[in-house]
Amino acid sequence: MAEARLQLVARRVRSFPDFPQPGVLFRDMSPLLRDPEAFAATIELLAEHLEARHRAKIDCVAGLDARGFLFGPSLAQKLGIGFVLIRKRGKLPGPTISTSYSLEYGQAELEIQEDAIQPGQKVVIVDDLLATGGTMSAACKLVQSLKAEVLEGLTVVELTSLKGREKLAPIPFFSLLQYN
Amino acid sequence: MAEARLQLVARRVRSFPDFPQPGVLFRDMSPLLRDPEAFAATIELLAEHLEARHRAKIDCVAGLDARGFLFGPSLAQKLGIGFVLIRKRGKLPGPTISTSYSLEYGQAELEIQEDAIQPGQKVVIVDDLLATGGTMSAACKLVQSLKAEVLEGLTVVELTSLKGREKLAPIPFFSLLQYN
Repeated sequence: MAEARLQLVARRVRSFPDFPQPGVLFRDMSPLLRDPEAFAATIELLAEHLEARHRAKIDCVAGLDARGFLFGPSLAQKLGIGFVLIRKRGKLPGPTISTSYSLEYGQAELEIQEDAIQPGQKVVIVDDLLATGGTMSAACKLVQSLKAEVLEGLTVVELTSLKGREKLAPIPFFSLLQYN
Repeated sequence: MAEARLQLVARRVRSFPDFPQPGVLFRDMSPLLRDPEAFAATIELLAEHLEARHRAKIDCVAGLDARGFLFGPSLAQKLGIGFVLIRKRGKLPGPTISTSYSLEYGQAELEIQEDAIQPGQKVVIVDDLLATGGTMSAACKLVQSLKAEVLEGLTVVELTSLKGREKLAPIPFFSLLQYN
């Protein structure tokens, strides 16, 4: 069952060489979003993994601007919990905290509202793809700055040769699809 | 029933004056995302409106980068159809078409993949908020450039005094919450 759904998800990810710059092989999840069955399978597989690993311990799902927003709210709904936005700097009103980090194609800053997560809450962080792990690592730091615990990071696609998973350790990480 | 759910949604939108710039009252939907019941109600109310108005005629939901991504995939799932990304320029691989437009706080460009929507398909376009209607109007033009039909634009929040709805006419528009 899980294997058939995973194969469906894999068939809906396509690759574009040299995007957004020469030497980068871009993994495009647009076909996955366009296929309701494949999108449902993606959310189910991520939710089943989290339920098996963390039971009912998760307080909320945090997701990364912008493509983490595609998966995060649906995953949170499937788990019956809330979704928290982690955004690029300057997008969120009210008291916020931010952190800067380097990513695959440059430098950036991430921000979260101070009241988004309460101290002691248990959080999972979702994005579409893990490359070097810079963005996910910065997101973990933001959540930890609010004295919350990051139970796990997870993405649909993981580019294993970039070793993002090692950068996140000891925080556990999970992905549905791994590419070299 | 619908009224109670709408009140719940309204209670989960908060306002911040002078964000992102002086004179702008920012409508923040973070509390809505954080409350699974309120988020579910939002998606249900949007889906029920579309089902009542267009029955089974809708082929896909298109959503706008980045906050339309928070609602679009869940709405598409509720309707049992696919979700299509409309993004800021330079984010989508492969053959694309783009259009530039002016928005509340400056100038921008939107882009869509050429194979995202087929000619003749019937599309609804979702975003979090309608202000002047510049972004939504540009998105409608993109979808129409692909020879598809925009059945309706819809958002969670509408700032009525900015008359975005008039800018979209004759394309129908629907919002859950209206603020002056």
